[in-house]
Amino acid sequence: MSAIRHALSVTREGDFAQWYQDVIAEAEMAEESGVRGCMVIKPWGYGIWERIQKLMDAEIKAAGVENCYFPLFIPLSYFAKEAEHVEGFAKEMAVVTHHRLIGDGKGGLVPDPEAKLEEPLVVRPTSETVIGAAMARWVQSWRDLPLLTNQWANVVRWEMRTRMFLRTTEFLWQEGHTAHANRDDAMAETLRALEMYRAFAEGPLAIPVITGEKPENERFPGAVATYSIEAMMQDGKALQAGTSHYLGTGFAEAAGIRYQDREGQQALCHTTSWGVSTRLIGGLIMTHGDDDGLRVPPQVAPQQVVILPMLRDNDEDAALLAYCEELRAALAKQWALGEPVRVLLDKRPGKATQKRWAWVKKGVPLILEIGGRDAAGGQVSVVRRDRLWRDDGKVNFVGQGRDAFLAAAVGELEDIQRSLFEEARARRDAQIHTGIESLEALAAFYAEDKRYPGWVELNWSRPTGAELEDVVTKLKALKLTIRNTPLGAQAATGTCIFTGQPAVERIYGARSY
Amino acid sequence: MSAIRHALSVTREGDFAQWYQDVIAEAEMAEESGVRGCMVIKPWGYGIWERIQKLMDAEIKAAGVENCYFPLFIPLSYFAKEAEHVEGFAKEMAVVTHHRLIGDGKGGLVPDPEAKLEEPLVVRPTSETVIGAAMARWVQSWRDLPLLTNQWANVVRWEMRTRMFLRTTEFLWQEGHTAHANRDDAMAETLRALEMYRAFAEGPLAIPVITGEKPENERFPGAVATYSIEAMMQDGKALQAGTSHYLGTGFAEAAGIRYQDREGQQALCHTTSWGVSTRLIGGLIMTHGDDDGLRVPPQVAPQQVVILPMLRDNDEDAALLAYCEELRAALAKQWALGEPVRVLLDKRPGKATQKRWAWVKKGVPLILEIGGRDAAGGQVSVVRRDRLWRDDGKVNFVGQGRDAFLAAAVGELEDIQRSLFEEARARRDAQIHTGIESLEALAAFYAEDKRYPGWVELNWSRPTGAELEDVVTKLKALKLTIRNTPLGAQAATGTCIFTGQPAVERIYGARSY
Repeated sequence: MSAIRHALSVTREGDFAQWYQDVIAEAEMAEESGVRGCMVIKPWGYGIWERIQKLMDAEIKAAGVENCYFPLFIPLSYFAKEAEHVEGFAKEMAVVTHHRLIGDGKGGLVPDPEAKLEEPLVVRPTSETVIGAAMARWVQSWRDLPLLTNQWANVVRWEMRTRMFLRTTEFLWQEGHTAHANRDDAMAETLRALEMYRAFAEGPLAIPVITGEKPENERFPGAVATYSIEAMMQDGKALQAGTSHYLGTGFAEAAGIRYQDREGQQALCHTTSWGVSTRLIGGLIMTHGDDDGLRVPPQVAPQQVVILPMLRDNDEDAALLAYCEELRAALAKQWALGEPVRVLLDKRPGKATQKRWAWVKKGVPLILEIGGRDAAGGQVSVVRRDRLWRDDGKVNFVGQGRDAFLAAAVGELEDIQRSLFEEARARRDAQIHTGIESLEALAAFYAEDKRYPGWVELNWSRPTGAELEDVVTKLKALKLTIRNTPLGAQAATGTCIFTGQPAVERIYGARSY
Repeated sequence: MSAIRHALSVTREGDFAQWYQDVIAEAEMAEESGVRGCMVIKPWGYGIWERIQKLMDAEIKAAGVENCYFPLFIPLSYFAKEAEHVEGFAKEMAVVTHHRLIGDGKGGLVPDPEAKLEEPLVVRPTSETVIGAAMARWVQSWRDLPLLTNQWANVVRWEMRTRMFLRTTEFLWQEGHTAHANRDDAMAETLRALEMYRAFAEGPLAIPVITGEKPENERFPGAVATYSIEAMMQDGKALQAGTSHYLGTGFAEAAGIRYQDREGQQALCHTTSWGVSTRLIGGLIMTHGDDDGLRVPPQVAPQQVVILPMLRDNDEDAALLAYCEELRAALAKQWALGEPVRVLLDKRPGKATQKRWAWVKKGVPLILEIGGRDAAGGQVSVVRRDRLWRDDGKVNFVGQGRDAFLAAAVGELEDIQRSLFEEARARRDAQIHTGIESLEALAAFYAEDKRYPGWVELNWSRPTGAELEDVVTKLKALKLTIRNTPLGAQAATGTCIFTGQPAVERIYGARSY
């Protein structure tokens, strides 16, 4: 194995944070934009987001949720109302104060003092308030319920430290907002969205996740209950990859979302909200990437197969290209994982080897290299991105007959999708540690010189209020956070390691993004 | 005909502007958001936009253009550079100056003076500058060309007078930006995008358009040539529905987009940009709407067929619903206009008649009402939205056997698509007036008491500079603008009515949105 010369100069083991940045750069997924904390999402990165959008949007629509679009700007007064209601209200937001530029007399431009807005506008950090106001207009009677709304949009949060895809000033997301007649309906919708996220993460993204409820201190401000999907990255840290909130009647009260029930009485709606963002792409990289770059699960790969003709700028190129084009067309007619196979014949100028490594780093699931001899003999040479190397350190290209390859291609794609998930799940499961029965043992566990210590599963008594704050403080000293309480887990036994009281449930603790 | 009681209280002839607003409200397409100049796009309006995006995006991708995402915010300095280069630089923009809110001590919030940005950020009015900067990074050699980029995004222009879909502070659009090695390639791309827009308008949107070049005074600031598609609304006014610009090397020079050619020499790229926006939806309404609300061409209709069961809250409802569900499933299996039929079984509570009028106003192409007797007898009752009324003033429902309807449904949808286009084209063609051979005759034509005078086709000598300004001033006095010079038209003969010189081409003049 030591003979392998990986495509990236920095390995995961060498410097995980730098490796992450390098994957993004080398796979041409995104780059710094020159605007603080904002990135340019390049075609390969955006193509993955388009795949996520397409598949998730189909699930959202299948659940009867309708897409809308709400304004980018929110008047300051909407937030003043929320700031009163909601403890933990975040104040780091981009504020628009002027609507015109004028020359400063020195060749530059400045906001025109004459064009100051009477009421500043906030660039939406989420559309909770403005959607709440719309729901108050739209809901009159029980016949209008449930009201199921979703938005795909950009939002802005003024982050001090940013990291591409994981935490950026501007990011892309979907936010679902729903209103219901009662608690049961709203809770069912909250859990439906959570299950949709789980199935999406573990299906198309091939990222194993734990679904569960966040502890009180990690709830969305104002929520009655917050649920999340939590994924383990290859450095053992946790990534919160999606959340779903049951908001009770608090938001409905603040926004005035009331309905007349079947008996003619006015009642407050129960609301929910749920969202996932471009952060999922960060999770994808840190779950599936390796020392040769990204590996994209076929279901979300913008291209699933890339064909590289080894052009020689001579007369034989035409026959080679014709062979490759026929191969491309034959693949494009097949269906894998519920959709037509996405296949690209890469005819751009450049050496096939250089192009191969560019596609390896992008993580395209199957790469074909076709030379003149292959074309003449009806052969293909193919490598699976998830099995890139032979033991002798050579790239694992396998020659086979064209027809045999075409007959096996769909199965290969489906196998890659499954394998990436299984590999990630086995790694995740091996890194969840149990049997830690005291705070001292917990401290000792994380004090050991383990680069990637993973998660711990702990029994606890579900403390609240000041008692919970005390637990959070103790964990913080170990750089740990509580991720969630898994749904559907067996009842806990034993003693809470924080309070000494009988345990009532289990939690996952971890370092996190 | 006088017996008809239309669904809208304001007719097109009565008050076109009010009718337009009423269609949007009654079809539940959009509404005011409470944020100045910004609208909430509701499910039916957003569903049409999703259809436009889906179909247009496929065309964009088929042309080899790749989607990216660029930041919402643009540093002020980028615009200072552009303001130097570009006469006609627009200065009405939303400016972000602060990144935090704090309490004002009186229960309100204000921008935190401690969190003032060193350099204000502009909310993108277009991404020209930031994409230019990215292209300068991405293009090194002739091998990188053409660089074909597109973005779907929201943009903001601080408009003084706004009108839903037509001119809003925030709107949604796509902006294509491409870089090429030479003028010919860039011009070919400019015209490809223009033709894509023409085919899209006349195909899925069923809106007949004139493609042509805008006169010098209507060019995008800094462009060498600007082309447009121009559509005629039912009030005879013109709507610029899409533009495509050949930008020469000026933008490349400002942004530093250079490449090394095959001979190793540095050269400037030739760039293009092209875009369409949610404005298309305004054009759709004013082309196809009638006094009963919207009519949506089947290709862009979020639902093409709606089935309304006439429920009676009794035991027979179950059989009726089963019959309707079977009908829905049978329709959903069919393909029309290249895609599976989009059909909705509307089971919501409420009277079928009320629901019928809601769908009429939304403009769904085919509406089915199914009663218990229909279900028992294997019948359906169906009305085409584009042939809503019988001569006796009754709604034009036609009863027919279920199987006959299923056999004819796809053909009906295709016929509606075609009919809406033909109807709009005939109306447009009848409203283009020729034979006006002097400025006096032009003034007299528009002075007549015609509510909807339409367009005029004029011979002109293609004046430039001060001479053109003089023409524009004269037209402005008549509230007229030059729309474009049609591509592929026969050579003009005769005399320019403005300059008295020999005409070299024809132009369309019109009042416009």
